[in-house]
Amino acid sequence: MSTKTFGRIPIERVTPAVDGGAFAAKAFEGEVVPFSATVYREGHDSLGAEVLLTSPNGATSIHRMHEGAPGSDTWHTKVQLKEVGTYRFQIRAFGDDFDTWHHSASVKIASGIDEDLMMLEGISLLTRAASEPSRSKANAKALVQLAEKLSDRKRSPKARLAEAETPEIAKLIAAEPIRSLETLSEEFSIRCERLRSGFGAWYEFFPRSEGAKFDAKTKTWTSGSFKTAIKRLPAVKAMGFDILYMPPIHPIGEAFRKGPNNTLNASAGDPGSPWAIGSSDGGHDAIHPDLGTEKDFAAFVKKAKELGLEIAMDLALQASPDHPWVKEHPEWFTTRADGSIAYAENPPKKYQDIYPINFDNDPQGIYAEVLRVVELWISRGVTVFRVDNPHTKPLNFWQWLIGEVNAKHPEIIFLAEAFTKPAMMHGLGKAGFQQSYTYFTWRNSTEELRAYLNEVSHETSDFFRPNFWPTTPDILPEYLQYGGKPAHKLRAAIAATASPTWGMYAGYELIESVARTGVEEHVDSEKYEYKPRDFDKAEKAGLSIAPYIAKLNEIRAKHPALAQLRNIEFHRSEDGAFLVFSKHLSAEHSATGLDDTIIVVVNTDPHSVRETSVVLDLWKLGLPDNAVFEVTDLITDETWTWGTRNYVRLDPAVEPVHILRVKRKS
Amino acid sequence: MSTKTFGRIPIERVTPAVDGGAFAAKAFEGEVVPFSATVYREGHDSLGAEVLLTSPNGATSIHRMHEGAPGSDTWHTKVQLKEVGTYRFQIRAFGDDFDTWHHSASVKIASGIDEDLMMLEGISLLTRAASEPSRSKANAKALVQLAEKLSDRKRSPKARLAEAETPEIAKLIAAEPIRSLETLSEEFSIRCERLRSGFGAWYEFFPRSEGAKFDAKTKTWTSGSFKTAIKRLPAVKAMGFDILYMPPIHPIGEAFRKGPNNTLNASAGDPGSPWAIGSSDGGHDAIHPDLGTEKDFAAFVKKAKELGLEIAMDLALQASPDHPWVKEHPEWFTTRADGSIAYAENPPKKYQDIYPINFDNDPQGIYAEVLRVVELWISRGVTVFRVDNPHTKPLNFWQWLIGEVNAKHPEIIFLAEAFTKPAMMHGLGKAGFQQSYTYFTWRNSTEELRAYLNEVSHETSDFFRPNFWPTTPDILPEYLQYGGKPAHKLRAAIAATASPTWGMYAGYELIESVARTGVEEHVDSEKYEYKPRDFDKAEKAGLSIAPYIAKLNEIRAKHPALAQLRNIEFHRSEDGAFLVFSKHLSAEHSATGLDDTIIVVVNTDPHSVRETSVVLDLWKLGLPDNAVFEVTDLITDETWTWGTRNYVRLDPAVEPVHILRVKRKS
Repeated sequence: MSTKTFGRIPIERVTPAVDGGAFAAKAFEGEVVPFSATVYREGHDSLGAEVLLTSPNGATSIHRMHEGAPGSDTWHTKVQLKEVGTYRFQIRAFGDDFDTWHHSASVKIASGIDEDLMMLEGISLLTRAASEPSRSKANAKALVQLAEKLSDRKRSPKARLAEAETPEIAKLIAAEPIRSLETLSEEFSIRCERLRSGFGAWYEFFPRSEGAKFDAKTKTWTSGSFKTAIKRLPAVKAMGFDILYMPPIHPIGEAFRKGPNNTLNASAGDPGSPWAIGSSDGGHDAIHPDLGTEKDFAAFVKKAKELGLEIAMDLALQASPDHPWVKEHPEWFTTRADGSIAYAENPPKKYQDIYPINFDNDPQGIYAEVLRVVELWISRGVTVFRVDNPHTKPLNFWQWLIGEVNAKHPEIIFLAEAFTKPAMMHGLGKAGFQQSYTYFTWRNSTEELRAYLNEVSHETSDFFRPNFWPTTPDILPEYLQYGGKPAHKLRAAIAATASPTWGMYAGYELIESVARTGVEEHVDSEKYEYKPRDFDKAEKAGLSIAPYIAKLNEIRAKHPALAQLRNIEFHRSEDGAFLVFSKHLSAEHSATGLDDTIIVVVNTDPHSVRETSVVLDLWKLGLPDNAVFEVTDLITDETWTWGTRNYVRLDPAVEPVHILRVKRKS
Repeated sequence: MSTKTFGRIPIERVTPAVDGGAFAAKAFEGEVVPFSATVYREGHDSLGAEVLLTSPNGATSIHRMHEGAPGSDTWHTKVQLKEVGTYRFQIRAFGDDFDTWHHSASVKIASGIDEDLMMLEGISLLTRAASEPSRSKANAKALVQLAEKLSDRKRSPKARLAEAETPEIAKLIAAEPIRSLETLSEEFSIRCERLRSGFGAWYEFFPRSEGAKFDAKTKTWTSGSFKTAIKRLPAVKAMGFDILYMPPIHPIGEAFRKGPNNTLNASAGDPGSPWAIGSSDGGHDAIHPDLGTEKDFAAFVKKAKELGLEIAMDLALQASPDHPWVKEHPEWFTTRADGSIAYAENPPKKYQDIYPINFDNDPQGIYAEVLRVVELWISRGVTVFRVDNPHTKPLNFWQWLIGEVNAKHPEIIFLAEAFTKPAMMHGLGKAGFQQSYTYFTWRNSTEELRAYLNEVSHETSDFFRPNFWPTTPDILPEYLQYGGKPAHKLRAAIAATASPTWGMYAGYELIESVARTGVEEHVDSEKYEYKPRDFDKAEKAGLSIAPYIAKLNEIRAKHPALAQLRNIEFHRSEDGAFLVFSKHLSAEHSATGLDDTIIVVVNTDPHSVRETSVVLDLWKLGLPDNAVFEVTDLITDETWTWGTRNYVRLDPAVEPVHILRVKRKS
């Protein structure tokens, strides 16, 4: 290692950067990305800083930075990234010679000191600047004209100085500063991925449940299939979802198959867990015969695409003992000292229906096989992979796989389903996963939510992109077991507005919330049995929140502020049970061409009517202090006049959440 | 830039490291340095981590790390660096195969599961390990013997497993772990500097004041000189100081010379500020004729060295208008538009006695000249440079200068006198300054001190090494203007015990604390006039705290825990006016071969007697919970029995501070 050599003007702590630039930072199409750097210099002369940004198509743009908190020496700007691909950037620091001169001249001339000298120095500076080869002709001409005005000894120094202080000159100098001691930082990069990498709503269903039928006479089930599940797609789209995620659709092993509620002895008709992949019908490249044929799958994908739904496939790298790999490639598993193949275990618990893959025995072989499988499904129309338990496979494998796939198919999205410690979850983000499951499911109180939303939006967003799921087939948190419909509504509302990417598991809209005793898991889990649902009947009976979910996704689609990750800001309330946050997108960054500002107020207590004062920091909404403005609740269409301090009453039995649009004067 | 490729086991956030390894981290001889890294892996198998450390002499040692807070995946160890020079290190992570096997075996055998298999797997593991070429023969033999014991089917699996659980086996495995998937981090470096870079007590005096005489009849002063100042050296040493720092000793300009109390018009006999360097008598390479000759200086340095005092020279890179550089090298200054040379100013204030140097006009010339001056004073016996206002010169100049000087003279120490914003102060540390002045002077309340001590000891110590000064010729803080003797004692005590490097400006021991109205500066500042002091008389009259200062430095010399920067820990007290901290050095790191533990309790309110309960976190002292032990106050020799919760009463008029030594059972 060698020591870094300081440039003429030190530039440090550049962001966005991951581990000081070891990895490209993440962004997605349309994201407004904050840039910052610590820039400082000797003495008292002024300095400036700017981002030199080269977009994937090779065009370079310059973005002037502004100093943040006094004394921090930290400079900031925000840039919206609109192209997919790799951006590169450097920070350029420079002596801001015009400002240095102007500061000195204005103080001295006000005091009647060095008047002639300051005029001379101004003329000399402007003349030098006008001759810079990189300066535009119009700008140079204007500087020369200003120099001439400074030279006019018939006028007072004060009057001459005033010529240098007009808005026109300020604009001119801002557009092309008079720079000296130019210093460049190292180069950093940002991988800007397509919109759906960072903004989208996911819906999860088990295709075998959609259209599954139980024959009461024979007491046997007929599995749902792509042909029956396809009928559910329009309803999924009608709720406003963008991605349909299905648990594994491959043949399921017979050996040690799990029965209902994760029991060890399955009966003949039990379908088994889709994650026990592989049987004599095939492995990761095959489709479960009950679900249909390749042709059926193709028809299903086609219909989804027509509706505007992308298909997310589950990538669960493990095998049932019946998987073809076990015979053909025993080297892809771990052989124990007695010659048997190691099944999954957490001693003394055994998971004999699952053989974990060993990535160290024959890396070349297994790496190539996984790539083949992924490429196969891409060729069948899959654009998103929800990766099961990536934290039980080597991190360097994922970095390799995602790198290989994205090099050829940059549009492919990988979601990491890792519920584990922060270091690994963050490492998976750095390794390339476009999205990650999060701890959102267990963050329920105002303080927990506020801290966690701040972390994922502002602290880790350069490498870890959150996907918020209120529940999954594995997790039914206590809060939802006991919170009923109000809790289901408010958790969906927080997920859908606080995070640009969120997901919902089928049945959530029906408030399915009975747990197996003592565990955070649904009773009669769909992982081990068929679970057909009569969504229409429930909705007609007023028992479904599907219309509420549709409304949430509609609000998301209409408000570009909610398509941003890094713009969340928090506000206070007197009652700590209220979570108050806002998302603001200024007109210049908004697809609508208008400022877009949303305030979300949540009563996180699903059991009580509460009232409070909400205190807004108006600058976070891009509003002046003491502004008074109209807000409209996008859920109820009610309208109020709000300002800094506002009375709120939320009855969770009616609506637990306000989603307020701020109306601006046009 | 290219993307970092993860190794088989991810290793991140390695410390000590400055800006991710961009600069070498700082350490000094004998310092106990904490190493840490975030290390994690897929799945549930055990892992280990260790520091591979190569010392300046090329020897590599291995230091096993231990996991810190559960879930943090952060691994730690501490290593004492004893050699001066550059250390290099890498973190090595590995699968801890013995621990993985043992965890599984112990759970399974306790449950009667897979007993034979676990024995077989243990045998296979030990056999493989015994054949590793890098394993020592004795270790390999012991592993083979253990494998044989595991094979003994006559004994129960439990009994056989117990053979793998003996303290001997634990020691054997700890010494030479059974590693797999070995992964190395990048290489980092640490510059370990000589002891005095990090541990020492400084004393500052103006040699012209020591022995200066005023003739009441002629109303004229005779300047002190090296010949008279040399008489003060034994007293400085007797107070226990290690370094004597003198303001500039060069000829002083006549032009615009400042008079007493920084007035603009000096009278004929006014000596001027030593920082207005240069006259017809010479510049930075010359000695002020009033102070004596080169020979006098040599004698002064010789005497200091005999006493064990190092000489710190002031390096103030600026010139009076009379400096020889001004005529010979006008290109080293800034010429204004009217042809005049720019003096220092902070408009509308003018400092016409000072010409700042311009480092951009002729960098080659001025760089070479400064290096020549520094080399010259090194050749005259100077080993330490206290750099005046380094933050008004380019940071890259300092990085170059210190790099050049230290390459040839690694023993030379540079102290940055920068009182400015954090970014620049930290940048100077990264650029190479061995020490820096700090904000200590303005941190007076318990909370301010605690936060700041934590920052300099634990957050910035890899690049910024603090030197704590209660006052300087420029700064007499309000706290000391009104705090009297108790405040002077307690501020010295905190500086001397909380920071391994501290300094005192002459007169402090006499409680000189009258300020100029409205400013934080001594009245009749020694910067502009002679200030002879009768230290002996004051001491005899009981008006000097010199004996207290001597006691502080004696305690520092006897207690190696106080020679450490990164070992400070804080404790609580019921009364928030008490600052309680401890420094602990374990026997293995202590030059005395014994644990060394100091507890400091300060009543930061110099005006009131206060009593409180002090609550100690005993683990921070290396003591077991509920320990009861003897403490001796090293100031008063009083002894008490202490434990977790202790009554303290401190009357600042008597003693404002306890410095307690913990007595351990031998």
